[in-house]
Amino acid sequence: MKAQKEFEIQFQPLGKRVSVPEGASVLEAARQTGLDLNSACGGEGSCGQCQVVLLSGAAAPANSDEEFLIPQSDRQHGYRLACCIRVQDNLTVHLPKESLITGQRLQVESNLKTIPPDPLVHAYLAELDAPSLEDVRADLNRLKDALERQSQLRDLQARARVIQDLSPVLRENKWKVNVFIKDREILSICSPSQRALGLAVDIGTTKVVATLVDLQSGENLGTAGIPNPQLSYGEDVISRLSYVVRNIQGRQLMSGLIRQALNELLDELLHQAGAKREQVVEACLVGNTAMIHLLLGYPVRQLATAPYVAASSDAIDVPAEWLGLALAAGANVHIPPSIGGFVGADHVAMVLASDLDISDKVSLGIDIGTNTEISLRLPGSKVLHAVSCASGPAFEGAHIRDGMRAASGAIEKVRIYDNTVLLTTINQVPAVGICGSGILDTVAELYRNGYLNRNSRFQTTYSAVRVGEQGPEFLLVSADQSGSGRDIVITQKDVNEIVLAKGAIQAGMQILLEATGTRAEAVQEVIIAGAFGSFLNIHNAIEIGLFPLLPNAQYRQVGNAAALGAMWILISRSARERARQISRMTRYLELTTFPKFHRQFALAMLFPESVDA
Amino acid sequence: MKAQKEFEIQFQPLGKRVSVPEGASVLEAARQTGLDLNSACGGEGSCGQCQVVLLSGAAAPANSDEEFLIPQSDRQHGYRLACCIRVQDNLTVHLPKESLITGQRLQVESNLKTIPPDPLVHAYLAELDAPSLEDVRADLNRLKDALERQSQLRDLQARARVIQDLSPVLRENKWKVNVFIKDREILSICSPSQRALGLAVDIGTTKVVATLVDLQSGENLGTAGIPNPQLSYGEDVISRLSYVVRNIQGRQLMSGLIRQALNELLDELLHQAGAKREQVVEACLVGNTAMIHLLLGYPVRQLATAPYVAASSDAIDVPAEWLGLALAAGANVHIPPSIGGFVGADHVAMVLASDLDISDKVSLGIDIGTNTEISLRLPGSKVLHAVSCASGPAFEGAHIRDGMRAASGAIEKVRIYDNTVLLTTINQVPAVGICGSGILDTVAELYRNGYLNRNSRFQTTYSAVRVGEQGPEFLLVSADQSGSGRDIVITQKDVNEIVLAKGAIQAGMQILLEATGTRAEAVQEVIIAGAFGSFLNIHNAIEIGLFPLLPNAQYRQVGNAAALGAMWILISRSARERARQISRMTRYLELTTFPKFHRQFALAMLFPESVDA
Repeated sequence: MKAQKEFEIQFQPLGKRVSVPEGASVLEAARQTGLDLNSACGGEGSCGQCQVVLLSGAAAPANSDEEFLIPQSDRQHGYRLACCIRVQDNLTVHLPKESLITGQRLQVESNLKTIPPDPLVHAYLAELDAPSLEDVRADLNRLKDALERQSQLRDLQARARVIQDLSPVLRENKWKVNVFIKDREILSICSPSQRALGLAVDIGTTKVVATLVDLQSGENLGTAGIPNPQLSYGEDVISRLSYVVRNIQGRQLMSGLIRQALNELLDELLHQAGAKREQVVEACLVGNTAMIHLLLGYPVRQLATAPYVAASSDAIDVPAEWLGLALAAGANVHIPPSIGGFVGADHVAMVLASDLDISDKVSLGIDIGTNTEISLRLPGSKVLHAVSCASGPAFEGAHIRDGMRAASGAIEKVRIYDNTVLLTTINQVPAVGICGSGILDTVAELYRNGYLNRNSRFQTTYSAVRVGEQGPEFLLVSADQSGSGRDIVITQKDVNEIVLAKGAIQAGMQILLEATGTRAEAVQEVIIAGAFGSFLNIHNAIEIGLFPLLPNAQYRQVGNAAALGAMWILISRSARERARQISRMTRYLELTTFPKFHRQFALAMLFPESVDA
Repeated sequence: MKAQKEFEIQFQPLGKRVSVPEGASVLEAARQTGLDLNSACGGEGSCGQCQVVLLSGAAAPANSDEEFLIPQSDRQHGYRLACCIRVQDNLTVHLPKESLITGQRLQVESNLKTIPPDPLVHAYLAELDAPSLEDVRADLNRLKDALERQSQLRDLQARARVIQDLSPVLRENKWKVNVFIKDREILSICSPSQRALGLAVDIGTTKVVATLVDLQSGENLGTAGIPNPQLSYGEDVISRLSYVVRNIQGRQLMSGLIRQALNELLDELLHQAGAKREQVVEACLVGNTAMIHLLLGYPVRQLATAPYVAASSDAIDVPAEWLGLALAAGANVHIPPSIGGFVGADHVAMVLASDLDISDKVSLGIDIGTNTEISLRLPGSKVLHAVSCASGPAFEGAHIRDGMRAASGAIEKVRIYDNTVLLTTINQVPAVGICGSGILDTVAELYRNGYLNRNSRFQTTYSAVRVGEQGPEFLLVSADQSGSGRDIVITQKDVNEIVLAKGAIQAGMQILLEATGTRAEAVQEVIIAGAFGSFLNIHNAIEIGLFPLLPNAQYRQVGNAAALGAMWILISRSARERARQISRMTRYLELTTFPKFHRQFALAMLFPESVDA
């Protein structure tokens, strides 16, 4: 039995990998990783709930259960039942949202203040006279006359798409309607009881988070998140851009994937709130430069290679219809301006929501992700300075042997005490892998306890450090304790990935301080945004030198500030104007143009001498 | 042989009908009507040129020649070879443009003045610095900086669709480009040698005429016309609207047909002029209210029935992309405002191009078609008055036994002298039918010579008036002289159709005069626009009372003034403003609200007592 073959199954879009013996079902493999797939029949091939899409790898053709339970059109697109696929090859499997009980943990809240609405869209009740042979004014003109008479509005306009729906809506509502108007533009015509809503979205490289908002009151009507479906085409920004450069249909594909995700989120939010799409008259979408380019179908060849030039860094408003988003007929989508390089509208939104641009302290604002953006505020100065660090996806769990995203079963906190490993997992289920905050904790604890030296080499003199297939490694959870049935370890290679990431971020912060003539002692505040940034242990981050030593700084973990900023820009005209000012006042520093950068980066990969001392 | 069956073949979109014996080929039938189908092999089934689409009627399935010569995908859509279909049923056949040697005669010129351009779009040369690691400004921002520095242009904007093409175009042109800008909007980026072009289109119920124009010089670079492809779904406006009301996909279908026709015309014009579509940055489309609704996908249910209310009568600008028109990335399509009822943007354009709005004479402007629009100018008055008459398609050759549109073989001029019929046909080929001007001539000559009495009844005492299948009729061309192999006649029913049409127009003019307190003697000028109006014999039109007696009026036949007006609005900002003023100053009078109208209409159906006397 020891000779039984093992195959690796990779689950997208969560990025979780697991090895299972030949003949195991994909459903069993998913369960070993802690992923809860829907399955009412318990894997009998009779409920049809555990549908997955086979992306790569060989498998026997669909059996009669699958032919019965899955429509042929779906089968043609690779849909299978996870319980019916017997593993006989390494497989990559996509998990549709509908098949997942417990999705990825998506941090969608922030602990920052909200702002009062300063609405861009206003609602006006209009009562029209019905037409007659003596009064044959066109419907739009009749509506405009009523709005002028009843609400003193003049020179109104409506897009052709709005006029396409106008005549039946006026008649169905018996000539009494609620009209949503932005500036002089009629966006949607609704029944008198419907209120105007908006959609704020943070399009992250890894996850997409959307909030439905009442545009008048600013009330949050619900938040939903899903993994970015582009993940299947590359975990980091550059590999997705490369995919588009190499594949002629790639631009359309990537854009279509994210548009579809946005529509799914909208559907979910509308369903939750019991609202109709004709009420959703405005959206604000933020994301890094690459995400926005992929969304809008902007050219990316020049963004994918040095000197990494965006097609546009301006704010833009596009009709929701143009983006294929099923909002109200005349709805607009606002995308705030970006700053430079990959520092995009999401960073502008983060700076806005964390008030970095108006802070009265010397403050660093940092959003850690596959790309990490850092901005520096010097009170009294009219400019912000920003850098972008290619920190890579290690803190998202990628390129780490047992890494995974922050989903159920991920190790999220680790302490090593007296050679004993103490850890907690998300949802308190048996560990199936380790996510960013857990990896950071592990590396810090290993260094603190002497398992790693300053050069981040494992000290193989320690008995807990064993030699695995990839060299020295540290055992966190043994196979008999883990949810995946295999050892969960941190390898030397994993440590190297973390060191590269933390070195890039630390060096970026140091260059930013040096370029602006700011001493480390002067920094009073570090604002950390984003999912990983909100869960990381600050003490450990300093321990390994993710941040340089800033002796007088206070650290604030603010959650998803980019998503909150998107909401501010959605509901407030003054916030939108402030976002424009932030993009104008921010000077982007390209790190690779600093001669010192490479040396600084090399030094930053060393662990600090002794923080605790 | 006398018992041989005859079947009727109807050819669309020309509207020509012909009866042929069982077993004749459709190609032979087409030739009998004077339609020249391409056929290099002379009907042997070997060249594949005489392709037609079988719209209705039974026929044997495609033979082996057809299977060989017509791609299956086309055969599935009803494509056949005209020479291979043996007639065994009444058929309706569509003639694709490619199969026709001689198309319909389309009057595309006008004899009105042209105006100097007052361009809305301007071209600016821009030379940009190439990006580097030290200068990573986004492409759009780099372009805007160059335009500000080199041409003092500020606050420019570009739609996302324009940005989609920007980066490669800048690089292909080595950072030196010609930029076309309207107001503050960047419409297209071209090579330095390309100039900005525009497209002016008159979308008629029967024909579509387009002109390609140099936007700077106003130069006409070519004109092309094709039948309106919606003809297959109804010859008049109301039947097309009804089709859309009855068929759920009708709105999309009608819109798609006309958009496709516009793209075909554009392709032809670009090919003729050796120009590229990225140069075509603006279009102006005019048409009656129904044509514009069908183009823009506006709702039409409320327009199809009394009180005939338009969805909108405002001018509108839509992105060419939204309409599916393959112009430049950022091109806009301008549709001028309409007036009321079915008096649309085409009438505004006609009033503009004929200077009716600024005439110093008491002037009537009339555009005769399936709907006839008439406007009255009273010098010194701040308003124009307009009416719309449901004159029907008789003057377009429809609903007339041997009627046809003004194509090759149509009788266009008729004189009856001493019981002898003198006539001329278009292209001087044997007569196959009779078009509007020929019908008008015939009726006038029949009345002048006493064959018809004042009540438009045939005087059967005349030997030339015979009794046909449909009652009394007058023989114009006998079967042995005609190109169709059958007698060409004018029947009592044909005369009735003409009388209805002319009665509607005359009554409309009289109500218009009465409603404005204008005596017939006061009218100084009658401006007649449109294809039929340009070819009709004015003397005969007065003879039968198409126009009321206006003793002091001079008549001007001005050709396609609507198409010319569209061109003015395309190239001139001041003309565009004047079009807006015309729509505002014109008061639409709904004829059916005048109690007198029905009596006036009844009286107008009588022939005048004696004009010649």
